[in-house]
This record gives sequence, C-alpha cells and structure tokens, in this order.
Amino acid sequence: MILGIDGYLGWPLALRLSAAGHKVSGMDNLFTRKAVQEVGSDSGLPILTMEERVRAAKELKGFRIKFYRGDITKYKKLYSVIKKEKPDTIIDFAEERSAPYSMRDHMHAAYAMQNNIVGTINLIYAARELNANIRIIKMGTMGEYGTPNFDIPEAPYMKALLDGKEDIITTPKWAGSWYHWTKVHDTNNLLLANKLWGLTVTNIMQGPVYGTRTKDITDQRLFTRFDFDETWGTVVNRYCAEAVLGIPLTVYGKGGQTRGFLSLEDSVEALRLLVENPAEKGAFRTVNQFRELFSVMQLAEYVQTAAKSAGIDVGIGHVDNPRVEKEEHYYNVERKVLPDLGFDKLKHNIREELVGMLMDLKEQRQRLEQYRSAIMPKTMWR
Amino acid sequence: MILGIDGYLGWPLALRLSAAGHKVSGMDNLFTRKAVQEVGSDSGLPILTMEERVRAAKELKGFRIKFYRGDITKYKKLYSVIKKEKPDTIIDFAEERSAPYSMRDHMHAAYAMQNNIVGTINLIYAARELNANIRIIKMGTMGEYGTPNFDIPEAPYMKALLDGKEDIITTPKWAGSWYHWTKVHDTNNLLLANKLWGLTVTNIMQGPVYGTRTKDITDQRLFTRFDFDETWGTVVNRYCAEAVLGIPLTVYGKGGQTRGFLSLEDSVEALRLLVENPAEKGAFRTVNQFRELFSVMQLAEYVQTAAKSAGIDVGIGHVDNPRVEKEEHYYNVERKVLPDLGFDKLKHNIREELVGMLMDLKEQRQRLEQYRSAIMPKTMWR
Repeated sequence: MILGIDGYLGWPLALRLSAAGHKVSGMDNLFTRKAVQEVGSDSGLPILTMEERVRAAKELKGFRIKFYRGDITKYKKLYSVIKKEKPDTIIDFAEERSAPYSMRDHMHAAYAMQNNIVGTINLIYAARELNANIRIIKMGTMGEYGTPNFDIPEAPYMKALLDGKEDIITTPKWAGSWYHWTKVHDTNNLLLANKLWGLTVTNIMQGPVYGTRTKDITDQRLFTRFDFDETWGTVVNRYCAEAVLGIPLTVYGKGGQTRGFLSLEDSVEALRLLVENPAEKGAFRTVNQFRELFSVMQLAEYVQTAAKSAGIDVGIGHVDNPRVEKEEHYYNVERKVLPDLGFDKLKHNIREELVGMLMDLKEQRQRLEQYRSAIMPKTMWR
Repeated sequence: MILGIDGYLGWPLALRLSAAGHKVSGMDNLFTRKAVQEVGSDSGLPILTMEERVRAAKELKGFRIKFYRGDITKYKKLYSVIKKEKPDTIIDFAEERSAPYSMRDHMHAAYAMQNNIVGTINLIYAARELNANIRIIKMGTMGEYGTPNFDIPEAPYMKALLDGKEDIITTPKWAGSWYHWTKVHDTNNLLLANKLWGLTVTNIMQGPVYGTRTKDITDQRLFTRFDFDETWGTVVNRYCAEAVLGIPLTVYGKGGQTRGFLSLEDSVEALRLLVENPAEKGAFRTVNQFRELFSVMQLAEYVQTAAKSAGIDVGIGHVDNPRVEKEEHYYNVERKVLPDLGFDKLKHNIREELVGMLMDLKEQRQRLEQYRSAIMPKTMWR
C-alpha cells in the first residue's frame, strides 16, 4: 500500500511494484496538486487524474491498482483502508514534502507540522492495532542530518563521546526548515514505536530525486508529475526546466552545497529492492538512499553540458541563497543497505538521463512557459 | 503573559509575579480541568473557576490579573491577545502535560502531538510577527533527556566525538513517551526559530514538581489544582494522596528511577528569577530546573516519615512499572543558571513541605476518597 500514491514517487512506484507482480493499493488526498497551483505553478508534464491513470495502467499494462481518495491525518479513513486491503507493507510518502512551502508563513509552517506528524502517528497506531507484522517503509530525507562534520552512518543510533562519557545516542540531526524538522520528528516518533512495540520500520533518508520518467512510463498517459518551481521543484528538475526556458541555471549562492542525488528510476528501483527485501521483524532499518554525491554547482555544469547535446545553450547564474545553509561543508555518508541488495549494479548514466529529461521537457516548452514566474526564489528563510 | 494560566504552575506563577509588581495576563482553554475528569479524577484541592479566583486575588491581594479564555492552537486568538496585551515576556505552559495521558491510545497520542507542536509553532510566529524582542520562556521537561550516561549540560548544543570526528550537535535527547517527544520536538523547533530569526528563548527543563501551596496561597479561594491520579499526578503528589488514603505508596518497579525534584514554591520562585533576569536578546538559554536529585524510592521513604509526623502510618508498595524506563541508571545534571541567580539561597526543607502537604490533603480526605480508583496505573506503555 502506497500512501501518497498520486505523488512524484508514489505513482511510478505503483507502476514498478505492479510490474514486479505485487498487488498494489494506495491512498492520496491530492494535496500536492492543489498546493503546487497555490504557488502559481503546475506539473511540467501533463498528468491525468488518478482515476484516469489507474485506467490507463490497466489498459496499457494490465495492472490492477486500487486507489482510495483520502487523507491519512483522518485516522478512521486510514484505519478502514488498511483494514480492507490488508497490506503486508505500507510505503508512506503522504507528507507535505517542500521545505520552501513550510517556510512561507505561519499557516504553512503549522500545516507541515500538523499534517506530517499526525499522519505518521496515525500510521503507527493503525499498523499496531491492525497487524503488528506490517512493515512500514517511511520516506524521510537526507536533509534530516543537515551537513555534519561527522560521517553520517546508516543507523538510527550511534556511539558518541560526550564530555568524556560514552553513550549511545540517536544519530544527531539538524534540520534547516520546518519541513525538515517534521521529518526528524517523524523519525523520533517511529523510533519510539519501534522501541516500545517492535514496529518494523525502514526509514529512508533520501537525497534529491531528478527525472521525468522511469522505464515503466512508456506512454504520456502514465506520466508522473514533474515540479520545477522554486517551492516544489528539486534542484536538478528546476535546472532542466530553466535550460528549456533559456533561464540561466539558478545556483543558490556559491553552489558548494553537496547532496546525494538519484534519478527517479533509481528511486523506484531502490524502493522495490527494499519492499522485496524487508527489514527483519522488529528491526529499525535506516537507509541512506542516493546514487552519487554532487555539489549543486557540479550539477549545473552537467545540465549545461547535457543541454548542449540537446541543442540548447544555457548559462549558469547565481542567485542569493534563500535558505540558511552552509555553502561549503564536509559531507561523507555511509551507504551499504542498497549496495548490498545489488543497487549499484543497476544501469545508470546521469548524462543520458539529463539529455532524456531535456528532450521530454522541450516538448512541454509551452506548458513550462506559463509558470516561468514561479521559478525564482521569493521566500527568504532568514 | 502566562499561557496555561489555569494550570498547576500557571495560577501560582500569576500570583507570584503579581506580588512582585508585574502586570500579569494569561490565557487558557481549561483543557486540563476536562481531561482530569475524563480519566475519572479531579483536583485534590477544590479550585474556583478562573473568573472567581481572579476576583479573589483582587479582593484578597489587590492583584489585577487579566484572563482570556482561549486556545493557543487557534492562531488568530493567540495573535490578538498578544497584540492587545503587548507582553515583554510570554511564559508558555499551555501544553498537554501528562505522559500517561499521551500513551492511552491513538486519539490521545495524536492530540498531544497536534496540540503541543502546533501551539509552539503558533507562539513562535506570533512573537516573530508582533514583537521580535519578546522573550519566550518555554516549559519543557528534564524528561527530554531520558537517563543518559553522559553528564547533562545546561546548554542546547554540545561538543561530541562521533566515530572519531568532532562536531557540535544538539544536546542528545531520548523521550520515553509521546508527550515527552512533543517536548523534544518543541525544543528543536524553538532552536530553529532562534537560529533563523534570533528569537530569545529560555527553555526550561524542569523536574517533577510537588506541593499544595506557595507562600502567596494564603486562602482556600486561591488554591491551585492538585493532581494525584495515575495520569495527571506527579509522583510525590500521588504518594501524599496515597498516604492520606491509606494506600501503600505506589513505587513503580524497583524505584531506582532518579530525577531532579522541586517544590511548587521553588518552581514559581525559579520562574520569577528567570522572568526578572531574562536571557540576552537573541540567546537560547537552557535551564535545568530542579532543587535536588532523589530516587522515587527515597521519596517514598521521605513521604512515609513525614506521614508519621502527621499521624499517618503508611506502607510502601511496589507496583509493576507501566512505563518503559530504566529503574537503575546514571544521572548527573548540570545546574548553574538558577544557582547563579541566587536560587540555592532560598529557604527550603523538603520534610517540612511534605508535612504541610499532608496536612492540606488530610483536610480533603473525603474529596480524595471519591477518586481513589484513579490512582493505580492502568495504561501499560508496552
């Protein structure tokens, strides 16, 4: 069961798991569709309604995906859908997922807190009450760690020496936005549920995802959403849309910010591996989910080069960083769970992927043009 | 301005600050009155309505305390009250404050999360938008730390050595209940507001409070609530009520759980000191607020002895620990802010205080008797 099945990752994952022979159901309140319009933007790829694309997946692929419209912050609804579908695994994407959105003003900050934290508490209790063996796969973010000077382990707890005393502590976190803190709060709440009741959790700390397609998206009717505005677009997706629109790539500040990136294809494939190779019963498995580390400046250069092969000349601009973050920092992250499951053997070529994205987006140039004004950063976090 | 002015600490603090010449206003949604009845209990001391006791404080002491009925999770209400009263300092007690209450079931867990976290986010934004110089004094709990093996500093950040790498991290926390995690989440959210916007915060990590009175409570009409049931009563208050009812004191498990305790008089006096000696503008001041460390077994022995002087013979019982916590552990806590403000020079004698409490409660024996069945632990956290 995929909570947030209408989302950027949710829909392609529904296709991937269906293709792998799993019975897939999902729930979504369609929040992101409205919230992207709220900031004056829309998906860069045209997407069907959930009902239409469920039908398309059936016609084109023979998949039987079951969709429930509903909000996981409504406990009764969530409870009844889980009770009905009896999933062995629940993948939770059903959260407000934009840091800039949470930083807009009071209302958006309170929404992120309420929505994300209550949603996760609901999931914890529904799982506990209905099936103590359910496996929860929770989408978190590498952003929970901030940019620490220590090596980021793939573990919820770590040994620490504090003023000469040794202890086991929760892996330290520093979140730079309300959104990011909601994810840390969720991680902490899940740790308690695991400790008290043995809830089986895979907590994914994912880096920014880029891409317009997965190999299952063989038809426009199967498109997943693609966000590129300052609020909802992740950095590479924003760069690619900018390239198509002839806007110099908006590198925030110096561009030394290093993160672990992965393509949409990588993300759904990693998720499939984690679904099919579950955490042990009662375990809390942390997964640092990304392919490679890049600085946002390096990625701008990659996009610029890929654009050239796609026949587009684009410059690189630097804009004032709206975020409060270090623009040069240490970053070393453990990555073992996915490689051990064979993830690193998967075919992968970022240049080809970027060229493919740019081709997809060139076809949508007129559509992107309408939302040009939503690209430049307006919400200054300071 | 005291948010949660109707509470165990809120009301006595309103009296203390008024006695010290401060202009005091406050808001409360009267939640605790209802929630204590919900678990089949009530205040062990009879208390007036807020309107009545504001009138009593005026008649008996000449205090002009302004009371607003309202819920801080309603942003507009909170905003308008702060805008009208223009406080220089806001003391925030307006949270669900019981760990067992939060552990009852899904509804109570979600309530604690929603109420406490949204309330704090509202306060952060209202302060930021109305007066960047407002000082926030936030009531947290020593329980945010759990029972770590390191020495608990009086600081929001600390140096740590993690796999051979040094870093500054937020002081590690481990909360054993949903309620305790809400307090950690609040601390983290306040840290971000301090970092981004320089919000001036005093974050109080308080130990369990006990007592029936402060020196301002010179008349029954000025009584503050006194909870003694398994859900809302803190350990010493529960013991004293048990002594009066002839119930062997309910020590949870072995009773080696060590905490930092303080009396109600100590608590309001500490708060007065912190109000009158504010944190520097833009600072985040952490205060470990308690008088002395005791194990809950030691305290049972103290209460037993005090009961004897009050003419009561009571035994000590051991009940299965409903909580998931260590019953023997290291515990060493830094305590410097309050001593530097003269706190340790204040008169204090726990034996006398316990005897006074027992005398007060003996007069309420018939009242306590009605709620006898609410004393024994029923919510097992595991």
